[in-house]
Amino acid sequence: MAEEMAQAQPRLTAPRSVRCIVKLGGAAITNKGELESINEENLRSACAQLRHAMSESDGDGAMEKVLGMDWSRKPGDPVDPAVDAEWIAGIARLGLDTNFVVVHGAGSFGHFQASRSGVHKGGLHSTLVKAGFVATRISVTSLNQEIVRALARGIPSVGMSPFACGWSTQQRKLASANASQIFQSLHAGFVPVLHGDAVLDELLDCTILSGDVIIRHLAQLLSPKYVVFLTDVHGVYDRPPTDSNAVLLREIEVDDIGGWSIVKPALLQGNTKGVEISVAAHDTTGGMETKILEAAVIARLGIDVYITKAGTEHSLRALKGDVSTDSEDWLGTIIRSSK
Amino acid sequence: MAEEMAQAQPRLTAPRSVRCIVKLGGAAITNKGELESINEENLRSACAQLRHAMSESDGDGAMEKVLGMDWSRKPGDPVDPAVDAEWIAGIARLGLDTNFVVVHGAGSFGHFQASRSGVHKGGLHSTLVKAGFVATRISVTSLNQEIVRALARGIPSVGMSPFACGWSTQQRKLASANASQIFQSLHAGFVPVLHGDAVLDELLDCTILSGDVIIRHLAQLLSPKYVVFLTDVHGVYDRPPTDSNAVLLREIEVDDIGGWSIVKPALLQGNTKGVEISVAAHDTTGGMETKILEAAVIARLGIDVYITKAGTEHSLRALKGDVSTDSEDWLGTIIRSSK
Repeated sequence: MAEEMAQAQPRLTAPRSVRCIVKLGGAAITNKGELESINEENLRSACAQLRHAMSESDGDGAMEKVLGMDWSRKPGDPVDPAVDAEWIAGIARLGLDTNFVVVHGAGSFGHFQASRSGVHKGGLHSTLVKAGFVATRISVTSLNQEIVRALARGIPSVGMSPFACGWSTQQRKLASANASQIFQSLHAGFVPVLHGDAVLDELLDCTILSGDVIIRHLAQLLSPKYVVFLTDVHGVYDRPPTDSNAVLLREIEVDDIGGWSIVKPALLQGNTKGVEISVAAHDTTGGMETKILEAAVIARLGIDVYITKAGTEHSLRALKGDVSTDSEDWLGTIIRSSK
Repeated sequence: MAEEMAQAQPRLTAPRSVRCIVKLGGAAITNKGELESINEENLRSACAQLRHAMSESDGDGAMEKVLGMDWSRKPGDPVDPAVDAEWIAGIARLGLDTNFVVVHGAGSFGHFQASRSGVHKGGLHSTLVKAGFVATRISVTSLNQEIVRALARGIPSVGMSPFACGWSTQQRKLASANASQIFQSLHAGFVPVLHGDAVLDELLDCTILSGDVIIRHLAQLLSPKYVVFLTDVHGVYDRPPTDSNAVLLREIEVDDIGGWSIVKPALLQGNTKGVEISVAAHDTTGGMETKILEAAVIARLGIDVYITKAGTEHSLRALKGDVSTDSEDWLGTIIRSSK
C-alpha cells in the first residue's frame, strides 16, 4: 500500500492569528510540596476562566451547559456512561475562539523523578538516568492527561508531548522543534496542550525541556497577541514574595539589546540594581530566572506578557487580554517592549 | 558532567536492526465487553514475556530484581516513594536487547467514544465529531499511559501518540508518518510504544488510524526480523473461532502479486475459497480483514509474521523469534512470503 501514500502537503502555513499562549505554572496547578498532587481548585478555576476567555459571546452565562469532551468512565459510572450525543450534535458551533495554546509546567510531577536520577544532566549510558527518563515521562504525561481532561470540560483540548513531537535539544538549547502538528491542530479547531518534558539532547543524550522555553519558542513561531503566565503569586516581585517587604513590579520594559527597566511602581523606576527579581518561591522548574528571561525574549518580539496569580479576577482579565498599562486595578506584572 | 559525554551519533539513520515489532491486540489487553477495562493478567503477562524475550542472558532467572521505571506515587504510598537509586546506579547495563517497538490496539478504550461520535467518518465542522475526537484521544492515551507503566517494570518504554508525532491520513490512508523520532528513541535505547489513535485527515478532517496500519508502516520503515501479533485466540482460523469446527491455519504463504495460500494444515492446502478467514471475533478495531491484509503486506517484504494468543508459551516463543515452519508444537499462525 506504500504506493498509495500521497506526498505530504506543505503543512507549515501558520493558522489565523493565535490569540494567546497560556502557561499553567507548575506552582499554580499542583501542590508543590506533595508528590504528584494536583491543585484541583486552581486547575478547575484556570480551565473555567480559559473557557470564559474563549467564549465569543463574552456573556456571563455564555454556555448554560458545558460541553463535556471527556467521555471516559469514572469510578462508579454505569458501564455505558451517559453521553448526550443528540444534544451535542444539535449544537451548531462550539461558540469558542479556540486559537489558544496551553503549555503547563510539571510542578510536583516529574520533578522528583528527574532530580533523583539527574535526567537534566544527561548521560543515557547510566542505567539510573535511563530509568529516570522513563519515570519522568510517565509522571509528566500523567499530569498532561489530567490537564487535558480538565480542559475538556468545554474546550477541545488535545495533548501533545514535546518528546513525541520530536522536539530535542543540543546542550539543553532547543535544537529541533517542528511545530507543524501544532499548526494543524489549531487549524482544525483544537487547543494543543504541551508540557515540560524529558527530551533527547544531541550532546548530552537527554535533558529536561522546561515549559517556559516551549512558550518562548511557540511565541516566536505563532506570534500570539499576548502571552499569559499563571502562577501562585501575583507576579514578579523585587525580592522573594515571601518577604513581607517585597514589592510587586507592575510593569517592566525590555529593549532590543537585552536591557530592562522597571516602569511601575514609580518608586523603583529605572532601578535594575539591587532588585532581586522573583516570581514564585516554589516554582523551581526552570526557576524564576528562566521565566523572566524567556518572558523578556517574548516581549522583545512586541508581544505583551502578563504574569499573574491563577484563580483570581486578574487571571481572568489576563486570559481575555483585558489588561493595559493603565489598568490600575489589575494586579500582576506586564512585561513589554520599550518600542 | 557534560564534558564526559560522548558526541551524539548522526540521528536520522535507521538504528541497528530492529528485532521485533509487537502488536498488543486490543482484544488481548483489554476486556472488550467492559468500557475502559484493562485485562491486567494478560497485560502483565505480555510485559513479562517481552522482558524475557529482550533479555540477553536468555536464562530463566534473567534478572533477579526487576528494574522498576515507574516511580509514580501509588495510592497508599508514602509521600516520597522508595526508589533504590543507588542500586539502580550500580547496574552497569540494562542487559536487554531493547530493539523492539510496541504498538497496541484500543480494545475497550476509545471504541465507545469513536463510534458514538463517528470520528472515523470525519467532518470536524460537526460539534459531535470534534467532541468525540477529544474524547477518543483522552481514552486511547489513558490506555497508552497504563501500558507504558506496565512495560516500565523492566523495559525502558516511552509513549508516543501518532497524533502528537504528526501522523495524518488522506482519505483514511496514511499520508504523513515521519518516524525520525521513533528512530531516535530506538537509537537512545528506548522502546517506543505507539497506539491506534484519532488523527487528522487531509480530506475528511479526521479519522481513526488503526494499530495494524501503524504496524505495517513501521515494518516497511524499520525492516524488523519478525512481527508478532498477540491476540485473544490462537491465530487465524478458517471460520470464526467461536465455531467448534474452526480450523487453525498454521501457515499461510503470500506471493508478490497479492495472492495467498494455506500451506498448513495440509487438509486445507491450496484452499483459498470457502475459507472465511477469522482472527478474533471480538477484535473489531480494523477488523480481521485489516489485520490479515496488513500482515500479508508485511510478509511480502520478507518479514515473518506470527499471530498467536497472548499469555501462553506460544506467545513467549513468538516474541523470542523461536518459531519456524517446522515447529509442530507451536500453536499459532505464521504468515510468510512464498519466496
